[in-house]
Amino acid sequence: MKKVYMDNAAATRLLPEAREAMLPFLGDDYGNPSSLHEWGDAAREALDAARDQVAGLINADPEEIYFTSGGTESNNFAVKGMALMQRAKGRHVVVSALEHFSVLQAAETLKKLDFEVTEVPVDKNGVVDPADVKKAIRPDTVLVSIMHANGEIGTIEPIKEIAAVTKAAKVPFHTDAVATAGTIPVDVKDLGVDALSLAGMNFYGPKGTGALYVKKGTRIMTLLDGGIQEGGRRGGTENVAGIAGMGVAAEIAKRDMAARIKQVTPLRDKLLKELPPAVTHMVVTGPTGKGRLPGHASFCTEFIEGEAQLMLMSSKGIAVSSGSACTSKALKASHVLLAIGLSHEIAQGSILFTMGLDNTAEDIDYIVETMPPIVERLRQMSPLYAKFQKSGKGGA
Amino acid sequence: MKKVYMDNAAATRLLPEAREAMLPFLGDDYGNPSSLHEWGDAAREALDAARDQVAGLINADPEEIYFTSGGTESNNFAVKGMALMQRAKGRHVVVSALEHFSVLQAAETLKKLDFEVTEVPVDKNGVVDPADVKKAIRPDTVLVSIMHANGEIGTIEPIKEIAAVTKAAKVPFHTDAVATAGTIPVDVKDLGVDALSLAGMNFYGPKGTGALYVKKGTRIMTLLDGGIQEGGRRGGTENVAGIAGMGVAAEIAKRDMAARIKQVTPLRDKLLKELPPAVTHMVVTGPTGKGRLPGHASFCTEFIEGEAQLMLMSSKGIAVSSGSACTSKALKASHVLLAIGLSHEIAQGSILFTMGLDNTAEDIDYIVETMPPIVERLRQMSPLYAKFQKSGKGGA
Repeated sequence: MKKVYMDNAAATRLLPEAREAMLPFLGDDYGNPSSLHEWGDAAREALDAARDQVAGLINADPEEIYFTSGGTESNNFAVKGMALMQRAKGRHVVVSALEHFSVLQAAETLKKLDFEVTEVPVDKNGVVDPADVKKAIRPDTVLVSIMHANGEIGTIEPIKEIAAVTKAAKVPFHTDAVATAGTIPVDVKDLGVDALSLAGMNFYGPKGTGALYVKKGTRIMTLLDGGIQEGGRRGGTENVAGIAGMGVAAEIAKRDMAARIKQVTPLRDKLLKELPPAVTHMVVTGPTGKGRLPGHASFCTEFIEGEAQLMLMSSKGIAVSSGSACTSKALKASHVLLAIGLSHEIAQGSILFTMGLDNTAEDIDYIVETMPPIVERLRQMSPLYAKFQKSGKGGA
Repeated sequence: MKKVYMDNAAATRLLPEAREAMLPFLGDDYGNPSSLHEWGDAAREALDAARDQVAGLINADPEEIYFTSGGTESNNFAVKGMALMQRAKGRHVVVSALEHFSVLQAAETLKKLDFEVTEVPVDKNGVVDPADVKKAIRPDTVLVSIMHANGEIGTIEPIKEIAAVTKAAKVPFHTDAVATAGTIPVDVKDLGVDALSLAGMNFYGPKGTGALYVKKGTRIMTLLDGGIQEGGRRGGTENVAGIAGMGVAAEIAKRDMAARIKQVTPLRDKLLKELPPAVTHMVVTGPTGKGRLPGHASFCTEFIEGEAQLMLMSSKGIAVSSGSACTSKALKASHVLLAIGLSHEIAQGSILFTMGLDNTAEDIDYIVETMPPIVERLRQMSPLYAKFQKSGKGGA
């Protein structure tokens, strides 16, 4: 059976070059990078190199990069750390309605610590209006956190414009760039952000690696208190092998970015164009062209339950997801899809294709050929579909 | 030149079996364990297996194990999470004076969030008296956190007796077992603790891996908010490769524990006995026999600066440290050595040997032969030593 992996938002295949960079640190170079003796040298040099590579990917200075265990830690570090550090100044935080759970739940934790949180809305494509951010900012606002792009519906947010708003209001601005860093150009200086989260596994680096960019002079409370690692801002012996792998993956992502975008964008456009008419009662979620992540296509199909659809696709060798992997077992309609105005019913039938290095036009053909009978089969079991067919009304 | 690595508290050599367990997840098995399609299956099974293995090491139930990025995250998760979750009940926390920085600094963060912290003292061997813990507990105490063993001076604490005190007072009890789990028997049920931190790299597993045991029914606030991973208590896509490696290392640590203890204990005792007379003006820090970690020997030498000593030892092929690797660049006298009553001056000359799988009696001989001339050379440069020689007084 043909195998099509199109769930690169959930996990990417580790680059062989990244793996090679990791292996010495799973072997003879086992020293602690903080050790003063020669056993620590290789590890220390690996951290330095990776810090340069990750900084290079986003045009930061190396000393502005703090290694973490992934995007979730980076987001928690930024949202809680920046807000709590300024709690004497104010206790109000602004986020968007379609942030990743690691931002939204961190904001919930802040509420428990007597913060207030405002969620700015998004339009039907998931786009935040900078004017709404401006309206949401209050004198006691100490942090705005709006993601660079949404991994579920592919929407790229106007971060530069939002940064202009936060800068004018003198409010620190964090962006979750897990879906963009390593995928599309990300330049912290051009974007004008104060903090930015990224994750190695989103650009063919290892799981369990990430970084938080913190602009020089930005105040932040540590999340992982401890030793002198990471300039005293993130304790714990570094995951040296993983960080070395992320560094190499970052360097290659920068080098190959244009070519990768050129590879997946036509695949995305082909799928966005060909799948809805083949499946019927299917809508694209997120923007259809400009303003969308290059390898990202997402849909909702009516009269269907997303998880069953996923399992049947898997039985045909196709790996896709129905939303964020972080919520895959939660079986609830995605907050992102509700935020763009979809009903619970149609949001249930969401499906998400995220393309990567291994995908080809033949993969798209296989999906367009395989999916319609699966949907048809599921619809035959749907009481809602039976009702619709009787009435002859409704349907996307 | 002979090479002697005796800094296993800072970093251990990854077991080949652990490395083998990791490799598939750095290769073809790259799926996200939360994915519902077959690409996630191998990762999910690896997490399940590792959870069983880590639980088995400490006699916990698998569902009481939460994977983290290491000992520091586990300690932060426990100390902040358990305290903050009960903040309505009270805002007082008890720790010992020789906790790891990840506990002490987490307690400092709690102070910023309006908690009070009591540090119970230790005796000259670093032992906490359970009666002191009892005295420190107040009606508003919501957490006691005392480490199982100290990595700098090797002292094993009377955790079971302290747990009896906290249990009687109905205060949750966390222990940092990073120095013990995988090294000496650790049984959470026998110890009677509510939470326990461990780290993979302390038992020949990979860096960047750890776990927190949280007894069923124990209240804890998440530290890394996010998705549905780890029962919703620790967000972020799991470091699958690392966790698989830690699992295998845990299983082997359990299997080989008695043999490993039998290997390193005589080496420790040989070094504790032979080094001080050879070096002169040298004292053992921590207990000299019973109540000390099996592969652990630590000393302070007078009229010497620890870091220079370290570098010269390294130039002779010997890897040791002067304290916790987490503070190796801090150049301050260790809080642990001050807590056991040493002066700043003598605490500067601390040296720490942590033995592991690769060490032999010949290594001890090499150290006992190599160190005295190094110390002598350093002393010739010490004004304090010149003064002492003139006066003919003082000296340990």
